[in-house]
Amino acid sequence: MAYRIITISREYGSGGRTVGELASKQLGIPLYDKEVVDAMAESCGFSHDFIEEVGEYASVTNSFLFSIAVSSRLEGSVNLMSAADQLYAYQANYIRELAEKGPCIIVGRCADYILRDRDDVLNVFVHADMDFRTKHMAEVYKKPEHAVPKWLKERDNRRKVYYKHYTGRTWSDPHNYDLCLCTSRIGIEHAAKMLTEIYQGG
Amino acid sequence: MAYRIITISREYGSGGRTVGELASKQLGIPLYDKEVVDAMAESCGFSHDFIEEVGEYASVTNSFLFSIAVSSRLEGSVNLMSAADQLYAYQANYIRELAEKGPCIIVGRCADYILRDRDDVLNVFVHADMDFRTKHMAEVYKKPEHAVPKWLKERDNRRKVYYKHYTGRTWSDPHNYDLCLCTSRIGIEHAAKMLTEIYQGG
Repeated sequence: MAYRIITISREYGSGGRTVGELASKQLGIPLYDKEVVDAMAESCGFSHDFIEEVGEYASVTNSFLFSIAVSSRLEGSVNLMSAADQLYAYQANYIRELAEKGPCIIVGRCADYILRDRDDVLNVFVHADMDFRTKHMAEVYKKPEHAVPKWLKERDNRRKVYYKHYTGRTWSDPHNYDLCLCTSRIGIEHAAKMLTEIYQGG
Repeated sequence: MAYRIITISREYGSGGRTVGELASKQLGIPLYDKEVVDAMAESCGFSHDFIEEVGEYASVTNSFLFSIAVSSRLEGSVNLMSAADQLYAYQANYIRELAEKGPCIIVGRCADYILRDRDDVLNVFVHADMDFRTKHMAEVYKKPEHAVPKWLKERDNRRKVYYKHYTGRTWSDPHNYDLCLCTSRIGIEHAAKMLTEIYQGG
């Protein structure tokens, strides 16, 4: 299989972005994560904060409405695109352009689904156990450890709802991915090495 | 992480057993699949065919009843163990003994769940796309290709129900495994190499 693109979907705090960064260095191809946000902020007129939050998460206040809105839309009863829908459409186009431009790694933002018609994409899902993620996030955000698991579950849930809303798929279904791996067991560095070796064909 | 055991859960026709056989040769440790059936047939009095069918699949005729029976049992309203439950208990003990005996690879039979309290177990889920599985199974069982997908779905479903019944978990949830991989994309040989390298620590 000749791969050109890697997409990484990741649970918050699992080290998925770091896996991507290491693979990006090893393979000498660019990684796009926050870089998507920066580029979108320049080109589409939405604010940086709005893109960062709404470009990957269902809204905190209306994730239930968010999750059922798609069915109304499919039935044709909602004709106006919400700002979130507009952002998704921009983002999807931008991701397709990135994939056309050249080999790269794209983190999050439903890239696996957006690029589903290409057969040169290696789709990866990165998860880790709650202890690992809690320690990692408490360190990064300087939050007290006891508050982190609830916060992580809420972030995961909003990613799940967002993914379901725009793809119709279940976020953590292994059938959406070529590889799912647990960084708290496999290790971040070994995970990156695995991606690199698959990409390089062996 | 120092691994001693590998468990492989696999979709029918995904090549999961072959991945295990290759890793078994590369690592020089035994693989147990049909071997579990043979040993159980000798020791517990059930027939070979019964163990092969009931030791990993919910019954064809009553998979719905099978899937809800566990809740009745938890409420204490069923006090007699069914033959399937007895077989599960024998099988679980046998798998724990295998793991104690020495390094090995165990295919199927809820081994990931049965050995969940050990931290030296690498748990792997192997899947593949339907085309790949159909071709593989049509070749092995000499069935007409058009009849295979329905048959595969039925086998998967009965494994799912069996797994849910005895573990309370969802069979294809990546959080149950350290690694999930798609053999139709990664390749059977590369998948075996990945297992071998993780087991050997890098």
